[in-house]
Amino acid sequence: MTQFEPKNPDLCADATATFAAQPAMRTLGIALSRLEPGEVELSMAYSPAFTQQHGFVHAGIITAGLDNACGIAAFTLMPKGAGILTVEFKTNLLTPARGTQFMFRASVVKPGRTLTFCEARAFAQDKGVETLIATMSGTLMAILSQI
Amino acid sequence: MTQFEPKNPDLCADATATFAAQPAMRTLGIALSRLEPGEVELSMAYSPAFTQQHGFVHAGIITAGLDNACGIAAFTLMPKGAGILTVEFKTNLLTPARGTQFMFRASVVKPGRTLTFCEARAFAQDKGVETLIATMSGTLMAILSQI
Amino acid sequence: MTQFEPKNPDLCADATATFAAQPAMRTLGIALSRLEPGEVELSMAYSPAFTQQHGFVHAGIITAGLDNACGIAAFTLMPKGAGILTVEFKTNLLTPARGTQFMFRASVVKPGRTLTFCEARAFAQDKGVETLIATMSGTLMAILSQI
Amino acid sequence: MTQFEPKNPDLCADATATFAAQPAMRTLGIALSRLEPGEVELSMAYSPAFTQQHGFVHAGIITAGLDNACGIAAFTLMPKGAGILTVEFKTNLLTPARGTQFMFRASVVKPGRTLTFCEARAFAQDKGVETLIATMSGTLMAILSQI
Repeated sequence: MTQFEPKNPDLCADATATFAAQPAMRTLGIALSRLEPGEVELSMAYSPAFTQQHGFVHAGIITAGLDNACGIAAFTLMPKGAGILTVEFKTNLLTPARGTQFMFRASVVKPGRTLTFCEARAFAQDKGVETLIATMSGTLMAILSQI
Repeated sequence: MTQFEPKNPDLCADATATFAAQPAMRTLGIALSRLEPGEVELSMAYSPAFTQQHGFVHAGIITAGLDNACGIAAFTLMPKGAGILTVEFKTNLLTPARGTQFMFRASVVKPGRTLTFCEARAFAQDKGVETLIATMSGTLMAILSQI
Repeated sequence: MTQFEPKNPDLCADATATFAAQPAMRTLGIALSRLEPGEVELSMAYSPAFTQQHGFVHAGIITAGLDNACGIAAFTLMPKGAGILTVEFKTNLLTPARGTQFMFRASVVKPGRTLTFCEARAFAQDKGVETLIATMSGTLMAILSQI
Repeated sequence: MTQFEPKNPDLCADATATFAAQPAMRTLGIALSRLEPGEVELSMAYSPAFTQQHGFVHAGIITAGLDNACGIAAFTLMPKGAGILTVEFKTNLLTPARGTQFMFRASVVKPGRTLTFCEARAFAQDKGVETLIATMSGTLMAILSQI
């Protein structure tokens, strides 16, 4: 669990609802598999529909999972009613995304009133072995205007 | 057009074939709309299936288009038979991805035997106006083992 | 010149003063060589004191020049009295930093009330030839609390 | 300690020598304070000569420390005689660099024959308290031609 104090008493319900409100996540078959203040895990089953020319999952799809994990992790530490936008992220692709299941684990490194910094890792699961395939570091922004 | 000398005499056919061999691009409705040595444009129509919780296209989908544009641009300057992998990229999201059509334009900044550096920009088209929505800078790697 | 409308009528004087107020720039021998709204060029002479183990200028020193060019470029489009902080940057090093003079050229790509996105390029000059050696893309933040 | 198997039996001596061969590190007063296979810590005392306009240590100087920590960490896992170049890094600046002493801690996340991926964190020490001020993720390249 994170060392940061949550500000939103309904963070689990609100973060789950925000995640569920994204059609892109349904299109990619990405589900919320763990949620704690400042920590999120998403999971995605392999599908040939997401692959590139060598049969590995496309880097953009992996990035969609990593970015979403960061966004929801940041969201859990924001005040109730905040909107969340991604400012930037870098993805490093360490090895081809080969597996039957993919996990995206993000944690908040530094929450802030306006900007929150997160890190995330993507893992491929194949025959009981989990391999680190990609990392992300990213900046998320709270949109507080509607509060 | 780029200032770099292509090494693959069949670069247009080979790059088109590599692009077409990616199921993820079909899933996302991304098409190759322009191809020159070192320069690529991809395009994608808006679909509600790709959106996040505010109705904008998801940053991961935008990144998939940018990354692919970079990959194909880098590929056009590689020797015939090279494979191509993304090493890393950073995406900066400048404004929400709102529009009816999205364009991903990449160009090679520095080709290399092993590593190629590219930059790309994503634009949203809406009611005849084109807006810069995101940028990418990324490193691609040539896999020459099979040549 | 940039297409963005400056908000600070004294931007040249203020940006020059902000640049001059940085001891680190004097330590590294980096000077302001061009300043327009949204565009900045800094220059630095080669010194063996800044080199790494192969005799090239250290990537961190190149990054200091690129980051400063971005910061001052962003500053020129901010309201009078704003403070400026770097949120993040990525540097891609394209070729070893070998030369007698180094130029750092930054421009604002997207100004914003809180966040400004800039790009910059570093060039090495050697025997009358200028070579692109590194790129930066970065996010700068305006600190408006003191206005 | 890292989980990766070192290939260079003289890694401590060779990494220490490579670090010491960099005039830029002496100029910035950065010293090697810990060295293990795949893990490096550098330290730097505060100096007004390295500051920006608000009296904090300049982001470029912090980046020089982070980049060097990554480079040496990557070097420890390369074969004897390899040269090392930085391909790219991203720095996220989390809070102003205020303190009397700065620590740069890097570890190898994924070593490779050609490319090695590292992460690093910068900390400021002030009155007995250590604060995370910046992070880096970066790609390093082994130059094996001279082996």
